[in-house]
Amino acid sequence: MRAVVIHAEKDLRVEEMAVPDLGPLDVRVRMKAGGICGSDLHYYLHGGFGTIRVREPMVLGHEIAGIVEAVGAEVSRVAPGDLVAVNPSRACGQCRYCQSGQQQHCTDMLFYGSAMRFPHVQGGFRQQLVIEERQAVKLPNAVGAAQAAFCEPFAVCLHAVKRAGALLGRRVLVTGSGPIGVLTVVAARAAGAAEIVVTDVADGPLPTALAMGATAAINVMAEPERLKAEYGAEKGSFDVMFECSGNQHALTGAFDALRPGAVIVQIGMGGNFTIPMNVVVAKEFDLRGSFRFHEEFAWAASLIGSGRVDLSPLLTATFPIEQAVEAFDLAADKSRAMKVQLSFD
Amino acid sequence: MRAVVIHAEKDLRVEEMAVPDLGPLDVRVRMKAGGICGSDLHYYLHGGFGTIRVREPMVLGHEIAGIVEAVGAEVSRVAPGDLVAVNPSRACGQCRYCQSGQQQHCTDMLFYGSAMRFPHVQGGFRQQLVIEERQAVKLPNAVGAAQAAFCEPFAVCLHAVKRAGALLGRRVLVTGSGPIGVLTVVAARAAGAAEIVVTDVADGPLPTALAMGATAAINVMAEPERLKAEYGAEKGSFDVMFECSGNQHALTGAFDALRPGAVIVQIGMGGNFTIPMNVVVAKEFDLRGSFRFHEEFAWAASLIGSGRVDLSPLLTATFPIEQAVEAFDLAADKSRAMKVQLSFD
Amino acid sequence: MRAVVIHAEKDLRVEEMAVPDLGPLDVRVRMKAGGICGSDLHYYLHGGFGTIRVREPMVLGHEIAGIVEAVGAEVSRVAPGDLVAVNPSRACGQCRYCQSGQQQHCTDMLFYGSAMRFPHVQGGFRQQLVIEERQAVKLPNAVGAAQAAFCEPFAVCLHAVKRAGALLGRRVLVTGSGPIGVLTVVAARAAGAAEIVVTDVADGPLPTALAMGATAAINVMAEPERLKAEYGAEKGSFDVMFECSGNQHALTGAFDALRPGAVIVQIGMGGNFTIPMNVVVAKEFDLRGSFRFHEEFAWAASLIGSGRVDLSPLLTATFPIEQAVEAFDLAADKSRAMKVQLSFD
Amino acid sequence: MRAVVIHAEKDLRVEEMAVPDLGPLDVRVRMKAGGICGSDLHYYLHGGFGTIRVREPMVLGHEIAGIVEAVGAEVSRVAPGDLVAVNPSRACGQCRYCQSGQQQHCTDMLFYGSAMRFPHVQGGFRQQLVIEERQAVKLPNAVGAAQAAFCEPFAVCLHAVKRAGALLGRRVLVTGSGPIGVLTVVAARAAGAAEIVVTDVADGPLPTALAMGATAAINVMAEPERLKAEYGAEKGSFDVMFECSGNQHALTGAFDALRPGAVIVQIGMGGNFTIPMNVVVAKEFDLRGSFRFHEEFAWAASLIGSGRVDLSPLLTATFPIEQAVEAFDLAADKSRAMKVQLSFD
Repeated sequence: MRAVVIHAEKDLRVEEMAVPDLGPLDVRVRMKAGGICGSDLHYYLHGGFGTIRVREPMVLGHEIAGIVEAVGAEVSRVAPGDLVAVNPSRACGQCRYCQSGQQQHCTDMLFYGSAMRFPHVQGGFRQQLVIEERQAVKLPNAVGAAQAAFCEPFAVCLHAVKRAGALLGRRVLVTGSGPIGVLTVVAARAAGAAEIVVTDVADGPLPTALAMGATAAINVMAEPERLKAEYGAEKGSFDVMFECSGNQHALTGAFDALRPGAVIVQIGMGGNFTIPMNVVVAKEFDLRGSFRFHEEFAWAASLIGSGRVDLSPLLTATFPIEQAVEAFDLAADKSRAMKVQLSFD
Repeated sequence: MRAVVIHAEKDLRVEEMAVPDLGPLDVRVRMKAGGICGSDLHYYLHGGFGTIRVREPMVLGHEIAGIVEAVGAEVSRVAPGDLVAVNPSRACGQCRYCQSGQQQHCTDMLFYGSAMRFPHVQGGFRQQLVIEERQAVKLPNAVGAAQAAFCEPFAVCLHAVKRAGALLGRRVLVTGSGPIGVLTVVAARAAGAAEIVVTDVADGPLPTALAMGATAAINVMAEPERLKAEYGAEKGSFDVMFECSGNQHALTGAFDALRPGAVIVQIGMGGNFTIPMNVVVAKEFDLRGSFRFHEEFAWAASLIGSGRVDLSPLLTATFPIEQAVEAFDLAADKSRAMKVQLSFD
Repeated sequence: MRAVVIHAEKDLRVEEMAVPDLGPLDVRVRMKAGGICGSDLHYYLHGGFGTIRVREPMVLGHEIAGIVEAVGAEVSRVAPGDLVAVNPSRACGQCRYCQSGQQQHCTDMLFYGSAMRFPHVQGGFRQQLVIEERQAVKLPNAVGAAQAAFCEPFAVCLHAVKRAGALLGRRVLVTGSGPIGVLTVVAARAAGAAEIVVTDVADGPLPTALAMGATAAINVMAEPERLKAEYGAEKGSFDVMFECSGNQHALTGAFDALRPGAVIVQIGMGGNFTIPMNVVVAKEFDLRGSFRFHEEFAWAASLIGSGRVDLSPLLTATFPIEQAVEAFDLAADKSRAMKVQLSFD
Repeated sequence: MRAVVIHAEKDLRVEEMAVPDLGPLDVRVRMKAGGICGSDLHYYLHGGFGTIRVREPMVLGHEIAGIVEAVGAEVSRVAPGDLVAVNPSRACGQCRYCQSGQQQHCTDMLFYGSAMRFPHVQGGFRQQLVIEERQAVKLPNAVGAAQAAFCEPFAVCLHAVKRAGALLGRRVLVTGSGPIGVLTVVAARAAGAAEIVVTDVADGPLPTALAMGATAAINVMAEPERLKAEYGAEKGSFDVMFECSGNQHALTGAFDALRPGAVIVQIGMGGNFTIPMNVVVAKEFDLRGSFRFHEEFAWAASLIGSGRVDLSPLLTATFPIEQAVEAFDLAADKSRAMKVQLSFD
């Protein structure tokens, strides 16, 4: 079996690995599609982010889907031949966060392709993967693995939308229109937002955002005054903002366009942000971090599986596993790529 | 009638003013007590804050209480001789914020002693004041004007507590133990917080915070590691934090002690804060600005008037109006003063 | 000008009326479409409901839309020729409910075609109507008055959905599939419900409910055990229930299919319901009344006006005003009619 | 060891039982105090309630506290000699409710002294009890077992208060002033309610309610019009109601005194309630069942253990275990008893 392994900054290799054994509660998946995420790129381009560094070879990948090829004796919910999206998170179920429905904060979380722990948790960019049954979420085979592999990033965005509270009838701003920004547009649309304005610092991704449900798109680099001019009256218009760029200027540049009491959901990871706290106070903003997902993985599978959302316009290109480096290089070029996937046959 | 007027930075004068006419819906108050607030000090020490500057002579003061001395023909809720706390905010009642219960964001707010608008809104540090009936909130005369003048800053803190949601059973951190910090301790205690840890960068105010209901007090300058050491296990302990210092280090220094999903209410105005946004995201903090108050002014009057809270330990000293400069100088010295009030007889 | 006037039970007349004067802030509307609502039918069939009785002749109708034919001198938001849905509620703007965003509970509400007050508030089933500018909500003329006249009942259902909180990913049960039930299906779908099961005591309306977005439909008279059998496992499946029938058995018959902690929104008016309170307690249901609407009228206009929802399948028939009695008789026959409208040319 | 065992209606016996073995994670408690609850009385007086019947001999009791006399090898949080309140609920930790912080709805709950399951779960009215470590909640020994045994019913009331949301500044009505009603008064006071009006159909318990924090008390049998007369203006005054009597008339009789949008928390179990649903709809009440508790058991122990609440005025009498029948007979006489406890020495 072949796998995509990061050894260090810019040192990405496709290597041979052994297939793990199948326990009675396990499912073996023949991997079909794996999307390259921003964190995969960070490991590839920089060897990690912040204090999190690659310290041993690690298989990358957590946006993954495939076909079940074998199941353990006690598995009942999936069967060989089923298309499954693989939930890359395994919460412990026992800690105080798991026991209060906040599994994304599990104190003993295993998350695929993450160097947060040591030994690192090996990821899913490989031809065969053995998972626990609870990680396998079935979709109709006709949907295809490429769309199924969007379950993970879409779950991140659905979780962000859940963090914002009810969106029905609300005016929404999404800053950053990379894959997370556009999937947030889709999620906000699904939740009934009345108006969704999306911004970016480049024109490139804006047509995709509009095609996926945004009602207006602004290049804030080209038109720096437009947000305030169009949405700044009466102390601001937007009820909810999703900050998907991880860029401080996207956040603070929108303050004039947010109404007092607006909810801001920060999804983009970013580093240090310098914020005019007197504005946060005087306008009583409500800034909420949003991290990963829990029940939203099943929501994503349901929305994609039922055909209520079609995420295929987000897929820029697919590369076979042996061309993983080319795939990563394209994914890193924001001017050319939205989502790049690997195939594993 | 005499009034305390700011002309410019460090130019505070006690001057003669005319008493306004009394309309049919108005109440004339013989002022008895006026607390000096942080914003009064900013006008005095710096001529304003941020872009808000004193551009014409302005009577200071918005923490005020007195005795009704005359009422207009249509006034029914108060009568001469009543002790009243004066609500210094007059929302328009018509704008979209007033019509949705967010009067503190009124687009046409008149707030006493504020240079946010021009002409400035004249304040309440004067011997006689004419207010609208709705601004007068009655307290039992036995409570006294000194405590009644705490209604305004206490309302600010009760509003902050309301912004945090239910506190019953919760573990609470309050950073900064000046008047707003200590009043927040009182408010959080009233709302049922199980544990209230208060911090400051000096020892001076901590005993007052403990006397007013804090369960522990930490000098974070003297013991910079203690918060994390005592409250940092299992990703953090505090459910709710109230940041009352306006200091960025108070905020970010507490992150390790806050549990994932913690609510942070920012009350202290501060300027630019640099925040590790990846922590806000990964721990899914919920950072909420809190600004002024609305219904909480009546709550403050009820808690003080019923004797359920006794704020008199917060009063450091009282000066007659003619010694306003001395009063302001003492109020500005955090090592010696908690709350300083003026009297107006 | 002709109007549809109820005099007493079964005494509905089409009569001549004078056109009111147009004030500077008013808008005169040439009425085009008026939907017959359950309360209109109650006045017609029973002379009222509960203690509310017709005590003087009253023009019926509050689901109304038309074309602006004249505007007062100070009107700026609409112009002659515009298609407008007419918001039939005029809250006072001054009472404590209006000042807290709960205008539907205004203590001085004027609601068209309602005998709750005396003198009654005259309704909108008439050829010309003078309204306040704030009552006129513009839609694209291409949408047509028939759909615009759905704004009011759709707003009722959007308000009910808002009362339920976020529906994204939730499993929803709607009991009763008359016009309110089906519009609630549409609203719940717009808000992102994952699954919407609709019930009725007859087969007739179920296909419409399915066509409008329900994922399953059950005739609970024909299959009384099915709800529990399919959705009763693990203490119940539905997160949210909307009770639109006003029938006690619809409510209590669903208890086994609701999960602990489920939210039940009661929209159907009904009379006395006998409820096993021990079940409400033991399963910690959250039963919320939902009454009329406020901001949701604009949401309805936006969803209909943008084409995001198409309510035309709900329109059973349209009668000219002179055949009002025939229209009411058809509307009263649930086996034949979903929504019946009047036209006024 | 002696235990209080119900065999059938009116057949309560004090019998000899064996002491269970102590596992490595277990704690053996020498029982000191056990409060008689309404459900204990139901088993005694009626052999059960509703469909729940005593079908085999069952030790009663779940309001229990004692002194640790031995601990298993792996127990670390309590030690012999500690005073502990015993949490009578053992949730499974695995089901979907446990994994979402709703342990009170555990699909495999073991709750002491309950005939809901068969075999029944044996209760705590016995001289020695072996529990899991997680069930033992430590209090200072000086507090005494009598007060510690109030943790369970107080937790029920704290949970009800949590269900209501923030109470700071709110006007609260409590109907029924038996033990649950009065403990709800205490809980609502702890959570910052501004005003707490309590009602009953007898004068007897009202002074205790007033002594424990109620601001007014009404005998609704003697003064049936007073609630509406004093609190019915402007559509009603109370923001929140706690229905603790389990009596339908207590609930519906308060509707005129509740403001639109009021939250009603139903704690009293009751049977079938007939409710004017049109009022629930038109006033948009929010009626929430409240069942048992989870984290609130620790809150109760903290409030009692810290001395912030003193529940000793609620204790009417204490009987030695051998006089269990006399104790039950007194507890059943609402005119004479608030809370009756057993002692086990």
